[in-house]
Amino acid sequence: MSFNSFGRLFRVTTWGESHGPAIGCVVDGCPPGIALSEADLQADLDRRKPGGSRFVTQRREPDAAKILSGLYEGVTTGTPISVLIENVDQRSKDYGDIARGFRPGHADWTYFAKYGVRDPRGGGRSSARETASRVAAGAIARKVLGEAVVIRAAVVQIGPHRINRARWDWAETANNPFFAPDRGIVPVWEGFLDEVRKAGSSTGAVVEVEAQGVPAGWGAPVYGKLDADIAAALMSINAVKGVEIGAGFGAAELSGEANADEMRMGADGPEFLSNHAGGVLGGISTGQAVVARMALKPTSSILTPRRSIDVDGQEVEIATKGRHDPCVGIRAAPVAEAMLACVLADAFLQHRAQTGGGAFRPGGEGRS
Amino acid sequence: MSFNSFGRLFRVTTWGESHGPAIGCVVDGCPPGIALSEADLQADLDRRKPGGSRFVTQRREPDAAKILSGLYEGVTTGTPISVLIENVDQRSKDYGDIARGFRPGHADWTYFAKYGVRDPRGGGRSSARETASRVAAGAIARKVLGEAVVIRAAVVQIGPHRINRARWDWAETANNPFFAPDRGIVPVWEGFLDEVRKAGSSTGAVVEVEAQGVPAGWGAPVYGKLDADIAAALMSINAVKGVEIGAGFGAAELSGEANADEMRMGADGPEFLSNHAGGVLGGISTGQAVVARMALKPTSSILTPRRSIDVDGQEVEIATKGRHDPCVGIRAAPVAEAMLACVLADAFLQHRAQTGGGAFRPGGEGRS
Amino acid sequence: MSFNSFGRLFRVTTWGESHGPAIGCVVDGCPPGIALSEADLQADLDRRKPGGSRFVTQRREPDAAKILSGLYEGVTTGTPISVLIENVDQRSKDYGDIARGFRPGHADWTYFAKYGVRDPRGGGRSSARETASRVAAGAIARKVLGEAVVIRAAVVQIGPHRINRARWDWAETANNPFFAPDRGIVPVWEGFLDEVRKAGSSTGAVVEVEAQGVPAGWGAPVYGKLDADIAAALMSINAVKGVEIGAGFGAAELSGEANADEMRMGADGPEFLSNHAGGVLGGISTGQAVVARMALKPTSSILTPRRSIDVDGQEVEIATKGRHDPCVGIRAAPVAEAMLACVLADAFLQHRAQTGGGAFRPGGEGRS
Amino acid sequence: MSFNSFGRLFRVTTWGESHGPAIGCVVDGCPPGIALSEADLQADLDRRKPGGSRFVTQRREPDAAKILSGLYEGVTTGTPISVLIENVDQRSKDYGDIARGFRPGHADWTYFAKYGVRDPRGGGRSSARETASRVAAGAIARKVLGEAVVIRAAVVQIGPHRINRARWDWAETANNPFFAPDRGIVPVWEGFLDEVRKAGSSTGAVVEVEAQGVPAGWGAPVYGKLDADIAAALMSINAVKGVEIGAGFGAAELSGEANADEMRMGADGPEFLSNHAGGVLGGISTGQAVVARMALKPTSSILTPRRSIDVDGQEVEIATKGRHDPCVGIRAAPVAEAMLACVLADAFLQHRAQTGGGAFRPGGEGRS
Repeated sequence: MSFNSFGRLFRVTTWGESHGPAIGCVVDGCPPGIALSEADLQADLDRRKPGGSRFVTQRREPDAAKILSGLYEGVTTGTPISVLIENVDQRSKDYGDIARGFRPGHADWTYFAKYGVRDPRGGGRSSARETASRVAAGAIARKVLGEAVVIRAAVVQIGPHRINRARWDWAETANNPFFAPDRGIVPVWEGFLDEVRKAGSSTGAVVEVEAQGVPAGWGAPVYGKLDADIAAALMSINAVKGVEIGAGFGAAELSGEANADEMRMGADGPEFLSNHAGGVLGGISTGQAVVARMALKPTSSILTPRRSIDVDGQEVEIATKGRHDPCVGIRAAPVAEAMLACVLADAFLQHRAQTGGGAFRPGGEGRS
Repeated sequence: MSFNSFGRLFRVTTWGESHGPAIGCVVDGCPPGIALSEADLQADLDRRKPGGSRFVTQRREPDAAKILSGLYEGVTTGTPISVLIENVDQRSKDYGDIARGFRPGHADWTYFAKYGVRDPRGGGRSSARETASRVAAGAIARKVLGEAVVIRAAVVQIGPHRINRARWDWAETANNPFFAPDRGIVPVWEGFLDEVRKAGSSTGAVVEVEAQGVPAGWGAPVYGKLDADIAAALMSINAVKGVEIGAGFGAAELSGEANADEMRMGADGPEFLSNHAGGVLGGISTGQAVVARMALKPTSSILTPRRSIDVDGQEVEIATKGRHDPCVGIRAAPVAEAMLACVLADAFLQHRAQTGGGAFRPGGEGRS
Repeated sequence: MSFNSFGRLFRVTTWGESHGPAIGCVVDGCPPGIALSEADLQADLDRRKPGGSRFVTQRREPDAAKILSGLYEGVTTGTPISVLIENVDQRSKDYGDIARGFRPGHADWTYFAKYGVRDPRGGGRSSARETASRVAAGAIARKVLGEAVVIRAAVVQIGPHRINRARWDWAETANNPFFAPDRGIVPVWEGFLDEVRKAGSSTGAVVEVEAQGVPAGWGAPVYGKLDADIAAALMSINAVKGVEIGAGFGAAELSGEANADEMRMGADGPEFLSNHAGGVLGGISTGQAVVARMALKPTSSILTPRRSIDVDGQEVEIATKGRHDPCVGIRAAPVAEAMLACVLADAFLQHRAQTGGGAFRPGGEGRS
Repeated sequence: MSFNSFGRLFRVTTWGESHGPAIGCVVDGCPPGIALSEADLQADLDRRKPGGSRFVTQRREPDAAKILSGLYEGVTTGTPISVLIENVDQRSKDYGDIARGFRPGHADWTYFAKYGVRDPRGGGRSSARETASRVAAGAIARKVLGEAVVIRAAVVQIGPHRINRARWDWAETANNPFFAPDRGIVPVWEGFLDEVRKAGSSTGAVVEVEAQGVPAGWGAPVYGKLDADIAAALMSINAVKGVEIGAGFGAAELSGEANADEMRMGADGPEFLSNHAGGVLGGISTGQAVVARMALKPTSSILTPRRSIDVDGQEVEIATKGRHDPCVGIRAAPVAEAMLACVLADAFLQHRAQTGGGAFRPGGEGRS
């Protein structure tokens, strides 16, 4: 019941504060015999890395991941994989003035209330810097899943500006600093975010993440549901305030007829005529793409002073100087991918445990 | 890592199928010395019970809960509390014609794919009947939390029809068959649901649940976050496709200034000028009301035939006769309360474990 | 982290007090598609049942197990299996006089100290009656393991009287009321136990349990070791005070040369020239028989008055009337089998999760 | 259900191989506000450190522990504590000749069978080097428990030579290289171990560990028993083959009268006239000293060639050169202390979670 671990069989424990000497994670339960290198982790870490454009924090971190255990001659051994990422660009003085005050909308207050003591430097454990460890773990999870499962995320809304889903092109997400799948939204977001940034303000966002190639049968009723695990995994990401699967909140408005994803028999098994379910029914994967979205609130670190109190109970006004993401949702896209990868790797192992793996196919005989 | 358990310290395991002899739950980790009776469970069970109006399933179940262990002379002993609820009104013939086909939008297909074998009678384990066990457990959780914590839920949207939040009155939820907090919406929903019911169709809904009286400090970073646990707990309820905390998806559109819940110092500690956070920051309770919403899809059991396949891979058309909720979201309100109660009871115990309980107060000395 | 559950993937939760209406268990994580009936459980329950000879408690319980969920048409569905065993022969008056006093060597005192409230009737939750639930779960575990794995236990010592291991014959365990594998010890134990019983005294015992047919590769370093799990499982049985694997405490006296189990290559894989390891090395099964022993203390319920105190802090003398096992170790043999079966079923599922199952064979290519 | 973690609330995850770049652990769930420094860890690590006498391995490791997270200004913050210990004195060539063969009595074979791939350098993950991480975690656990709980271990048997318990003096354990509490046994063990060492052989040992100052009420029925947790924790230590609590295997020979620890009322609560229970009844602490023993087998690395096979299935003879402990039991004393400390810290937090802490006292009113 570790607070800083997630996953049941593919189990990730992260540690570290924003301005401590390092952060990292331990991945336990990884199957043996999988080729893995630090370069595999680096590719994903680089996508999340700060400093990549003027729209994200200017902190400069190489985010170079070292693997300290669990590998032998380039292959996983089945023992725990310890990953360490040094913190290089701490500037704790930036935070000196908020060490005693509670930024409205930030975890400053709740950490104080709970623990009495907290590391205020850069938000300590509550900093989004922790998500680098998730991305490292997610890269390992992808290796467990193999190439048949493709996981990718896109930002679909920044502030009030939504993409045009008709123009969705996954390839575009690599061509702009926003992970936008819609080329047309890019100038809109640039203009909007430049305003936000210049005003010392911040804005929220929505990220969509999907996994293609997930076979039917992963997940489990009733509290080990695949979608319940996804909901917890995404909601645990900093600043996330909402999670939905498939049609999500929109499903509330649908009729049963509209919501039902009709099925036909295809050459390789069942085929669906729609995917309102987002690839999950009864907590178990259907064989369609698993689709989830998460909403992120605006960063609480803003230049405009807000009314608050401090550890002494004094009423104060707080404005955040220092370096921050004006829209933390942007860099959350690779984090969402990582969390979905970890949940799926875990679901894969759990399914294999209980059933031996594979799925029953209509008209077939036993498991595929 | 039990699939059919949830909670870390206040741990609930449920079992049972819709048309088996009984359903039930085992609640482990309950503190000793709490007065508890079967009547305490019954009050909540009666609110969830089928057959209460023409807008819910006509199955007649007394849902009489028996407590088989963990009590001595009316008081909890700290040992596991086993609750048993007999199934009385099974009509398995109603389901005979769908034993081999997969209802679109239902768990029929995924249970088959995963297990090969399933209990098709009434949906078996995937039936909403399982939620009676949750409500029984939730009633015990309320006792653990005590009267200072008040948990209640309301239906805020049915199909496309939303309540007017300006007319919110908690007292109204007991005066209509919809748990509606807005008297004005009742005739609208009546008319809408009568149409849905007569058409043999179904519709989705949104339920809002809140807990007042939760002290600051419950929950834990980073994967044991209070909101992550709430997200998983609500997403595990049948038909739920989306979960949000506080401002939720709306937070994506807010500026940092608008989203920040400013703080002032009150007589009893910090006071907040708004609650976009929904009572949770950094995964830890703020001391404000904890507010969550969940979206439920329309019931998949509808009279209009839909295209599907069966266990033999044959293409078929499926319509569901039998008894069903046209809007499963209605009876989900007490279930949402129960799940939130269980999550909070668990968070209370976890907080007490790590810290001894209580919270630091600004300007105070040590824990309250 | 449920107190009343054990196992990671094959997960058993038990509930119930000695003199409550019933006891039972919920088995979660059982693979689907396994033929199972109440009769399968009954066979093992009958071996543990009280009242079988004059050497065990005279309480009369049919121990008839009902399966309430998780089965459909005689086959497991992968959903939780709920087992209920009614208590029939409660005589709570027998315990009236000890409701306030603490029997020396009994859990009376510790339950009071921990909980303040306890069910004193028949020892409540601390009664050996709880082990019937373990035996029911163990019977399900045996089905998961299949016929290739044979688990059996024998009593090897009662009080100071040990069997002659040279005369070991498993078949004999069914021919006497002591589960003795050595026919020669039976009259010795009869005489000894008749004396103990007539004196209103009690005695300890040692039980040996082994599993044949366990393939190499089950278990996991470093805290999920197969032998660590066995140690916890056996130590959790009432009255057990010691557990050993293979050579056990005797290994402390051995030289490295004597202790090493040399290996040769057999037709079906490695063969060992001895089994000091008890079938486990580095926490992982070797392919040899898994062998464990557990020591049980004498029952604390004795007729001779012992000095103690009561809930009011008064000094008292306590003697136990009522019905009791003079040697609780006898009926512990089927319980040890059940616990080993559960641990192995769990290890099997865990191994399959991480590796896909099977084992590498020297000179082979990949997993068998 | 992490394989490389233990503890429920005070949760320790270790990682690292004998000859990798480093080993370490992450301690999650530690209460906030506890003064802690690297020096606190070092004191215990130095007691376990190799190279301290001619009777232990000559590998030279400073075992300098670095704390990378979870501390702020010398105080725990409640977030995970990451400890890193670099490996300095690897000599992997020593192991080159056994990379393909399986040492009899060693985990070589079982790791190969399970994983197919393994790190053979120094035993990889199965090396006793991993226990340094346990000792670091145990030092943190001691801080959680505070000074009122005193945990210490002694070696009570090496090979066939047992201490004279009548001469027990805890102070002596610091005066000899064996952690012997009996000054008289020291020359005997010196002579015996010199012979063993010169012969290139090895020998087993028994370690006794106790905790004084543990209040009544820690632990929980039925599978979260304090003694079951201790059994698993000790059995998980390398080379341990047996565990006992209190009278242990000796209890099997006792009568109920002899085994019962009679109670009288003392000034500070119940007093016991003996401690056959080893401080645990019904899985819950009694308030007496918690006493456990563990038996360790002889090291499997010996100079005398033993018959075995290799990864190709070839029959070979294996002798271990390199550096090894002739009696791994010696350095296991601080490891046993560490494991008991971790189990007790965990039990303390669990007890506080469920009950709020404290214990009922006979004649008292409510919890102390």
